Amino acid sequence: MFSHNKKLLHEVKVDQANPAYASMLQEQLGGGNGELKAGLQYFAQSFRIQDPEIKDLFLDIAAEEFSHAEMVAQTINMLNGHEMTNTKDNVGQIEGQVLGGLSPMLANASGSPFTGNFVNVTGDIAADILSNIAAEQRAKVVYEYLHRQIDDQGVRDTIDFLLNREEAHNALFREALNKVQNNQRSSNDDFGVTEDSKLYFDLSTPGKYFDNPNPTAPSFESPRQKQETTPVQ
Amino acid sequence: MFSHNKKLLHEVKVDQANPAYASMLQEQLGGGNGELKAGLQYFAQSFRIQDPEIKDLFLDIAAEEFSHAEMVAQTINMLNGHEMTNTKDNVGQIEGQVLGGLSPMLANASGSPFTGNFVNVTGDIAADILSNIAAEQRAKVVYEYLHRQIDDQGVRDTIDFLLNREEAHNALFREALNKVQNNQRSSNDDFGVTEDSKLYFDLSTPGKYFDNPNPTAPSFESPRQKQETTPVQ
Amino acid sequence: MFSHNKKLLHEVKVDQANPAYASMLQEQLGGGNGELKAGLQYFAQSFRIQDPEIKDLFLDIAAEEFSHAEMVAQTINMLNGHEMTNTKDNVGQIEGQVLGGLSPMLANASGSPFTGNFVNVTGDIAADILSNIAAEQRAKVVYEYLHRQIDDQGVRDTIDFLLNREEAHNALFREALNKVQNNQRSSNDDFGVTEDSKLYFDLSTPGKYFDNPNPTAPSFESPRQKQETTPVQ
Amino acid sequence: MFSHNKKLLHEVKVDQANPAYASMLQEQLGGGNGELKAGLQYFAQSFRIQDPEIKDLFLDIAAEEFSHAEMVAQTINMLNGHEMTNTKDNVGQIEGQVLGGLSPMLANASGSPFTGNFVNVTGDIAADILSNIAAEQRAKVVYEYLHRQIDDQGVRDTIDFLLNREEAHNALFREALNKVQNNQRSSNDDFGVTEDSKLYFDLSTPGKYFDNPNPTAPSFESPRQKQETTPVQ
Amino acid sequence: MFSHNKKLLHEVKVDQANPAYASMLQEQLGGGNGELKAGLQYFAQSFRIQDPEIKDLFLDIAAEEFSHAEMVAQTINMLNGHEMTNTKDNVGQIEGQVLGGLSPMLANASGSPFTGNFVNVTGDIAADILSNIAAEQRAKVVYEYLHRQIDDQGVRDTIDFLLNREEAHNALFREALNKVQNNQRSSNDDFGVTEDSKLYFDLSTPGKYFDNPNPTAPSFESPRQKQETTPVQ
Amino acid sequence: MFSHNKKLLHEVKVDQANPAYASMLQEQLGGGNGELKAGLQYFAQSFRIQDPEIKDLFLDIAAEEFSHAEMVAQTINMLNGHEMTNTKDNVGQIEGQVLGGLSPMLANASGSPFTGNFVNVTGDIAADILSNIAAEQRAKVVYEYLHRQIDDQGVRDTIDFLLNREEAHNALFREALNKVQNNQRSSNDDFGVTEDSKLYFDLSTPGKYFDNPNPTAPSFESPRQKQETTPVQ
Repeated sequence: MFSHNKKLLHEVKVDQANPAYASMLQEQLGGGNGELKAGLQYFAQSFRIQDPEIKDLFLDIAAEEFSHAEMVAQTINMLNGHEMTNTKDNVGQIEGQVLGGLSPMLANASGSPFTGNFVNVTGDIAADILSNIAAEQRAKVVYEYLHRQIDDQGVRDTIDFLLNREEAHNALFREALNKVQNNQRSSNDDFGVTEDSKLYFDLSTPGKYFDNPNPTAPSFESPRQKQETTPVQ
Repeated sequence: MFSHNKKLLHEVKVDQANPAYASMLQEQLGGGNGELKAGLQYFAQSFRIQDPEIKDLFLDIAAEEFSHAEMVAQTINMLNGHEMTNTKDNVGQIEGQVLGGLSPMLANASGSPFTGNFVNVTGDIAADILSNIAAEQRAKVVYEYLHRQIDDQGVRDTIDFLLNREEAHNALFREALNKVQNNQRSSNDDFGVTEDSKLYFDLSTPGKYFDNPNPTAPSFESPRQKQETTPVQ
Repeated sequence: MFSHNKKLLHEVKVDQANPAYASMLQEQLGGGNGELKAGLQYFAQSFRIQDPEIKDLFLDIAAEEFSHAEMVAQTINMLNGHEMTNTKDNVGQIEGQVLGGLSPMLANASGSPFTGNFVNVTGDIAADILSNIAAEQRAKVVYEYLHRQIDDQGVRDTIDFLLNREEAHNALFREALNKVQNNQRSSNDDFGVTEDSKLYFDLSTPGKYFDNPNPTAPSFESPRQKQETTPVQ
Repeated sequence: MFSHNKKLLHEVKVDQANPAYASMLQEQLGGGNGELKAGLQYFAQSFRIQDPEIKDLFLDIAAEEFSHAEMVAQTINMLNGHEMTNTKDNVGQIEGQVLGGLSPMLANASGSPFTGNFVNVTGDIAADILSNIAAEQRAKVVYEYLHRQIDDQGVRDTIDFLLNREEAHNALFREALNKVQNNQRSSNDDFGVTEDSKLYFDLSTPGKYFDNPNPTAPSFESPRQKQETTPVQ
Repeated sequence: MFSHNKKLLHEVKVDQANPAYASMLQEQLGGGNGELKAGLQYFAQSFRIQDPEIKDLFLDIAAEEFSHAEMVAQTINMLNGHEMTNTKDNVGQIEGQVLGGLSPMLANASGSPFTGNFVNVTGDIAADILSNIAAEQRAKVVYEYLHRQIDDQGVRDTIDFLLNREEAHNALFREALNKVQNNQRSSNDDFGVTEDSKLYFDLSTPGKYFDNPNPTAPSFESPRQKQETTPVQ
Repeated sequence: MFSHNKKLLHEVKVDQANPAYASMLQEQLGGGNGELKAGLQYFAQSFRIQDPEIKDLFLDIAAEEFSHAEMVAQTINMLNGHEMTNTKDNVGQIEGQVLGGLSPMLANASGSPFTGNFVNVTGDIAADILSNIAAEQRAKVVYEYLHRQIDDQGVRDTIDFLLNREEAHNALFREALNKVQNNQRSSNDDFGVTEDSKLYFDLSTPGKYFDNPNPTAPSFESPRQKQETTPVQ
């Protein structure tokens, strides 16, 4: 059960209206690595999870991602300003101008609609966590791109906050993967059993830089442990 | 900002697992009149609303619809059971079986993915409320169809609850339309001004049953008022 | 059975070619509230309607919306002009330039393709009419946005005509809803029967402006009646 | 401008209701080679055509395809019958059952929605006519498949009629291609000019059955001429 | 089984970076008439082909189209340059900038994602070859449009090469159609048998330029034969 | 540049035709974790990679995934058999039956078309490799589900081979991530710098099992190293 508080998770502001920036930021509202995708992915994955620790983590982060989506949408809203103009400096999607009356749209920066195809749910705990780690890393990357292109200090502060939160989630999901490594029946079982999993097929020429692999189930060096030992170096 | 409580808005149960019923119920999770669509529509519409009463109503209902989506997903989850089988009585989408490991999917009953195209946002308060009234009515209709086809008392109780909540929302949105009728600049202004709006074009023959219209801005008989006077009759 | 007359329903013209305006106008050809969506929606809804009056109304308006789509497409065609250029003032979709040889496309202003997901068909007369009323209101809103952004008198005259026609349809659909209120088995039956339909869930805080609803089936004040009494005021 | 007549282009009937057949037939209403696709394709292509003969042909056939769509939809409607049941013999899409109240849907046999991506418009007369010839041939093929699977004489009669009409259109489009061969600036100009157009790249091994091509602009043996000479043989 | 060579099928170069040109060229990477569509279409069609000559042709061309896709993608890559900027001269899709870090995307010029809906597979040899002829002609047309709009000699050389290759494929597919004309059970059998296939429905008025057709199965004048006789003229 | 060999990468066979199994297997041809998605993802990611070792790895695996897609398609082809029937035991997509003439389709098990939205490309080497590790794990999971449901020894042998190859790729991508950890400017730089990245937001109640994270850039325990030390244990 969800409840909503009209206070944002973290205050947003913009220096001035800029519809082109609004278009770009749409990518993190309705795009493939955006906040809505993240929130819905963790929410949808949570249903079949038995382990209460992992389930709680997924739902904590899902609720936070919905709250991020709200921050992004509110920023787009302010960037769209109050003038509906056939502005020459616009780029990408213009649905917000001609369809939405300057509203944030559930679409990406080019106006392609949000789709459930963005959301990865397998019902397998190892695969789902790996999907989430990758999703958080991609979300960080998109925020880095937007940071470079959006020259507005208010928006950049918000991007900075959100980017750092994705890093926190990334580390938490890696910790979760380590937790389920041994106590959970998952696709990490029985890795690298047959000979087929140990072959390298050299199908692009020239070039042969990698050897035959020795497959093991994926596990991360613990971010927590690493952090603790880093000061020593 | 959203927060989540692991208690469902309303308890769900199923009499027994039934993957065919799970497939059907997907319609109200990821389909065009489903709970996710409703929640995201009211959430997305809320951003540019100035009137605090209307904004609060939209966000109250948005949070409830997300909570409904959770109930529907949890019911699908239970209906999918524990056996991954090439069951002969399956109908419609099989993504939950072959892709999702029996997880609820963000897709409709035929497996077509949820899409932002389902969500109507115009930034115009009258048009948005009318869209919501229609959406609630359609959601009721789909629950009626599912009620007829799903012969499981546990699921029917949940459908019954959700159907009645859509009726509550429907009435509330109509009340909201009446509230904004006079105090809000919207597409309800200047209705039926030119002669073109008063013509009837009889383009399908035979048959001519309607006269030229006398367009006025849409407004509902107040559900509240109607209710109060009904006992008198 | 459809037939076609090469005369447009209403003459269109443009002051001068302007590909950016053409892109914007695509919204009403292939977009979510566009003419193609409207025509196909009423056409698809008409198949199961028994009442000859309602069926005739739906098909009259469907044929008119297809004729509107033709007007919009012809206007886009003229706005695209004769020069295929990498014009700097372009916005939104560029499919008409690089794919369609300046042809009108079945896509919206951002180039996202028309989809059957825009079309609402439930087979329930009350829900379908409510969907249509909402669709007509949204179409009006998009035309208002386009009118503000497209500074070309020829196009504005066409927008003005089409906008007024949507108002006519809107009023007619409301009249139709009143007609079926009593003589038709529909989702308007049994509204507000259980206690669940009478509760207000206050899930977004702060704010509690609406009371518990008293749900009744939706019905409009008759536009015709209202019109007749308006002069009295 | 379109007008509609409630009489179908050609009467349809079904021996008895069969929702599985209804699902299959959806392919020709909302699918990639279906009637709606055909009608919208020729309609959308017609806008930039200058030659009045070709334009007339495209619009004659567009109007007929819309009329075919109506016949297919009416047949689906009858096949869906009156019982909303969780029928075990259903296959493919179930949107008509759970979403549409037994209405025909704008989706294909698997429930994937109709999309503008099905529609080919290039603004080039030679390419557009070739697209149409191919589309008519594919439509014939799908009707052949449906004929084999749908064991209902009433439906088969309708399929037979529609299949033969696609052949008529196919021949007419080929005649149109021959007509524009010389009098029209199109992509048929300057075919096979450079050496690159005369090379064969043998990239799949083993096997080399085709020689280097000698490209010329595509033109058909005239179906009319061929027909006339056939009796002579 | 596919193998890859890091040498391109044909060298590509650009005079200078130009993100707007990159956006346009996306049309032939991820668009409806693009190289990926062509390669996947011929690949998918090849599976049920029995005739070894035709199967070889389809796979030769499929492998070449994948190699074309690589050339187009590499050109987009160079046109995107090294600067991620909120460039004012951008048009169409901006996913490459905000999502892909200047990578080529699997989307068209407006940012609409590649979709399997672009790919025509019927399992009927005549229909599939006709689809391919039409697809090659459309691909040529899009390259003509891009040639006109992209004023960069390096890119134009690549477009010129690719355009000529489409012509070669076009001629080869027509030769293939002639080859299967008699030795293959296909939709070309039994063309124009019933009277319904010989009628002309004059549904768009005014205008009646075409007579009743005399349908025969489609066959092309042999490009090879035509070429051989052309010098004589 | 791609070339093709008609020999499959690995022989496929089926015990007997079974259209329901064919439908299920479609998931790994045209679905979100399927072979086509994998091949296109690595291919599209490879364009901006500078490091020749990583680029070679991506293209080796891309070519292999296309070869896997061919194996899956050929298996579907054999499972579809030779009879086009309205088989009662069918599940999921029926496009192969009514549209494709028993051909493999570029769609998933429910008939939803393949889409570029499945493909993750960010132009950032760390994010792209993490996406690939997750994709390989998900592909393994889907093969596990299919193995359980498809009771045909021939198909199971193919699934077994493909599943093991995904494990090999998974291990290789992890090795690649370790290689680029230090010698590459990527999103792994500057991980966990600000305080925001070290906070835990407890937004789902009850439950608080995870502490504040100590974010570091993701890196895997080397699969190779792990393998070598495993025998010691």
